[in-house]
Amino acid sequence: MFTRKGQLTRDRIVAEAAALMFERGVAGTSTEDVQSAAGVSASQIYHYFGDKRSLTRAVIEFQTDAILGFQEPLLARLDDLDALRSWADVIADLQRTNGYHGGCPLGSLASELAETDAAAREALAQGYRRWQHAIRDGLQAMKDRRELRPDADVDVLATTLLTTVQGGLLLAKTLRDGEPLQTALHAVIDHVGSFATDRQPAEGSATSRR
Amino acid sequence: MFTRKGQLTRDRIVAEAAALMFERGVAGTSTEDVQSAAGVSASQIYHYFGDKRSLTRAVIEFQTDAILGFQEPLLARLDDLDALRSWADVIADLQRTNGYHGGCPLGSLASELAETDAAAREALAQGYRRWQHAIRDGLQAMKDRRELRPDADVDVLATTLLTTVQGGLLLAKTLRDGEPLQTALHAVIDHVGSFATDRQPAEGSATSRR
Repeated sequence: MFTRKGQLTRDRIVAEAAALMFERGVAGTSTEDVQSAAGVSASQIYHYFGDKRSLTRAVIEFQTDAILGFQEPLLARLDDLDALRSWADVIADLQRTNGYHGGCPLGSLASELAETDAAAREALAQGYRRWQHAIRDGLQAMKDRRELRPDADVDVLATTLLTTVQGGLLLAKTLRDGEPLQTALHAVIDHVGSFATDRQPAEGSATSRR
Repeated sequence: MFTRKGQLTRDRIVAEAAALMFERGVAGTSTEDVQSAAGVSASQIYHYFGDKRSLTRAVIEFQTDAILGFQEPLLARLDDLDALRSWADVIADLQRTNGYHGGCPLGSLASELAETDAAAREALAQGYRRWQHAIRDGLQAMKDRRELRPDADVDVLATTLLTTVQGGLLLAKTLRDGEPLQTALHAVIDHVGSFATDRQPAEGSATSRR
């Protein structure tokens, strides 16, 4: 347990490390870089994290929370396919804003660390599972309201959407172009749409219908 | 231009560098590692490639050729959705054989290099374009035989398939599990199937029908 001030220092170190690792990769980010960005000493990093691997795992959790923090509210409010398209557009817009740099904060860490750091790989796998569940829960809510047919396998559809997001974000940063991300996500949402019933969402907000 | 013997030496260096970079990443592979694996001197590497960046670009071309070398024959022979499923299964089987290690040789390089090496990024983008075209040409042949409806946008479908392969291969290496790759590819092939006509492929091989 850390004091309140200690917790703030720890959070600042993680946020700065996350930004550096997103920009330069984990291998390209030294603990000296993190010290200097966060304005802390080597012994403070050691105090809060022990070593770089443990700091990297904290960055993975930070990035997972960040991704789900902005997506979960959108996913919890899926009322129809348009809401799913809005979720896709938010992801694509964020890439456009970044100039198609950096790709997915989680995917870039996964690609770099999966073969070299077993604990990081497990943390990243956990991050992907949380993300898949958030998407699935949104689709399940649509299914519970009978906006998706009973034969819609929300697990399969959520996995397909997550897979498409990951591939699309990798292609976006490689091509410096969001078109494949946009195109593929909308094609997969069309596929989700093939399971839609004729049931129109009721008037009013999604929340009022729960 | 190199002599025949020179060409063989050059090819051996690229193949060894590709294997090391696939296993350890580009940053984790020194030119000394490549020298020792290929049994060549530093001056030979310099003679053929100049520097590591130029060697890395040769590795990107090598990996693109390898990927398309085993996929193009399958894609050129797409006669129906089952043939597309076989293509997907070949990709998934290869991952299983690898113990879900390494992911996509092109995708892993793309994730590592897109932000740090502009020439590599362009070479990787070119590799992705070639791959998308190979998939699209297979789908276009199906469409020309009226096995896909006129409103099937083969460019969109090819981009969606490539995006799904890339996301699925990243998830496979992170989760050490091929299920998302398999699930997502088959879901996208179902989507392609929604554009299929009732026209059954004729008897005999695809070639005989051209």
